[in-house]
Amino acid sequence: MIYFDNAATTKISENVLEEMMPYLKENYGNASSIYSLGQKSRAAIENSRIKIAEILKIKPSEIYFTSSGSESDNWAIKDILNKKEKNHIISSRIEHPAVLNSLKYVESKGIDVTLLSVDEFGNVNLDELKNSINDKTGLISIMFANNEIGTVEPVYEISKIARENNILFHTDAVQAIGNVKFNLKDLDVDMMSISGHKLGAPKGIGILYIKDGTEINSFIHGGSQERDRRASTENVASIVGIARAISDASENIDENIEYTKDLRDYFLEKLLNVDGIILNGPIENRLPGNINISLKGVKPQTMVRYLDMFDICVSQGSACAAGSIEPSYVLSAIGRSEELALSMIRISLNHNNTKEECDFVFDKILRGMKKFKK
Amino acid sequence: MIYFDNAATTKISENVLEEMMPYLKENYGNASSIYSLGQKSRAAIENSRIKIAEILKIKPSEIYFTSSGSESDNWAIKDILNKKEKNHIISSRIEHPAVLNSLKYVESKGIDVTLLSVDEFGNVNLDELKNSINDKTGLISIMFANNEIGTVEPVYEISKIARENNILFHTDAVQAIGNVKFNLKDLDVDMMSISGHKLGAPKGIGILYIKDGTEINSFIHGGSQERDRRASTENVASIVGIARAISDASENIDENIEYTKDLRDYFLEKLLNVDGIILNGPIENRLPGNINISLKGVKPQTMVRYLDMFDICVSQGSACAAGSIEPSYVLSAIGRSEELALSMIRISLNHNNTKEECDFVFDKILRGMKKFKK
Repeated sequence: MIYFDNAATTKISENVLEEMMPYLKENYGNASSIYSLGQKSRAAIENSRIKIAEILKIKPSEIYFTSSGSESDNWAIKDILNKKEKNHIISSRIEHPAVLNSLKYVESKGIDVTLLSVDEFGNVNLDELKNSINDKTGLISIMFANNEIGTVEPVYEISKIARENNILFHTDAVQAIGNVKFNLKDLDVDMMSISGHKLGAPKGIGILYIKDGTEINSFIHGGSQERDRRASTENVASIVGIARAISDASENIDENIEYTKDLRDYFLEKLLNVDGIILNGPIENRLPGNINISLKGVKPQTMVRYLDMFDICVSQGSACAAGSIEPSYVLSAIGRSEELALSMIRISLNHNNTKEECDFVFDKILRGMKKFKK
Repeated sequence: MIYFDNAATTKISENVLEEMMPYLKENYGNASSIYSLGQKSRAAIENSRIKIAEILKIKPSEIYFTSSGSESDNWAIKDILNKKEKNHIISSRIEHPAVLNSLKYVESKGIDVTLLSVDEFGNVNLDELKNSINDKTGLISIMFANNEIGTVEPVYEISKIARENNILFHTDAVQAIGNVKFNLKDLDVDMMSISGHKLGAPKGIGILYIKDGTEINSFIHGGSQERDRRASTENVASIVGIARAISDASENIDENIEYTKDLRDYFLEKLLNVDGIILNGPIENRLPGNINISLKGVKPQTMVRYLDMFDICVSQGSACAAGSIEPSYVLSAIGRSEELALSMIRISLNHNNTKEECDFVFDKILRGMKKFKK
């Protein structure tokens, strides 16, 4: 099998699974229990927190384990409903649905939402950002990197603007972590969403980084887990898993980024030489593994299913709903025609992929285009 | 090791882990992907849903997978904030913190909350319930069985009252499932919270049953997972795990309940013959594995740590916070003195425990009492 859909999810790495196994077997204690079996779980959680904090250059007490990037996004966004004075959020048109649909929800509760437009490469407009800020602005939420077209947003500049205006800044870094080198000391944001399953940890685990001193209510109320801020019996095995995954990703990040970028460029060069294949998204400041292309005149579902016959996994770009196909809102936002938006596939490589795989997939895409092009 | 804290969490059963493993390894596809690897995950999720639905006698479409019982409780309770006409909830003083703290949150948003009192055995007062209902009552939330003292609440009667008054009824069944025989066709509730890790499934997976036709908003917004009602990439392995755990529990439920009840009664008889050991909670309508006793004059933490030296896991009843020990609100609600409430331990047995274990633990409790009794 050739897996070229690493932005959708990844296989749990062998290291990660190995480190998780004791917590799926003999070390099953509830971390709130004071006997030894419980305290083993407690130690595993707190050591995981310390490990992640060291890598991200933050305090362990700033890490809150959640069940997913989506939960983290919901938490960060919806807390605006607990703020009395601040009822305005600035975000962008190309955020992940977890952000966009949380925004729609708070909008239905009376919050003002400004969605910034983006340029043809997906970059948010910083002037528009500055001009959108007002006295009521309580939060800026702009993704670190886009999941569809791979645009890495100018988060350092946005962070500076937020700081100057004394506004909280949240960023969804689900696609960025492991693919962009950063730490939270330099990138001075107030909140960051992270997901485990995009970088070799299991599905069902995420993190919300909350900078010390940030006023924020609980999103899941209940027991006193996560310093009284996120209730639920801790998912020890998956917490250990995400810590190991972040640690492994950090250890090899320079090599992985360079390798993946080279591989992507190699593949992209071949693809863009084909008549009818068009790149969507930026050339520079793009996630190293992201390839988003429109195959003129070819339905993406048809191509994805054709490639599946050769055990190749790539993603159709647009979301299917009830049989009808909507063009991607991200491609619409960067100004792509409906025709191009409706013929888009996403390939997301990582360091486990090879040139041989690219060659094989390239050949099949060519064949598919000949076969299906209208 | 003797594990007598099954109400806190359980070991993942071998069957469950075995069934999960392919989804922690080779079947890692995102269930939203249309290629075969993704569709394997999709099939696993939908088959799990069907399996659970058959056991609970509901429709598969009424099952929503969440990350925990706490998330399910938060979802069911906080949705009152989306109801315009209905701003009153009735619950009880001995609910789980996930319910009580969600109630406190909605109360801070202007919702009226009535907490029913309970009798000396922990049963809610049905007359008080009936008298508390008014035109604005949008939800009744009463737990199926209490986590501390094991009281099984009169949920069938409450369901009837709710139905007669056209009020939604939610029940937290985290402690009940696998320990009380029921199905949702007979127990006609609108919403039910279930957790995996109390019955041999992993931590980090739960269910909210939502009866068809129940008006409820999403709690975690984002992608279109769970029929647009609960976003996040599905946690396939844990979904497969909870389905297997519920299936296994259901298959042997009569034997397990009888075995555990006999074991509990055997142990309880020995314990209650000891001077200074007092039972908290009911004799009848009690969870089969639950033993909640006060050890007069003994600090529960001391006893729990003493037993831990012999590799015995039991729970101290009360919650520790910042070094100071609060008496259990459940024991206060049933009218126990502070002295008794502050000397309480909880033992929770299941079908994996044995008489030999009970004898061994009994001996150690006796020794501990002699050693530590003031």
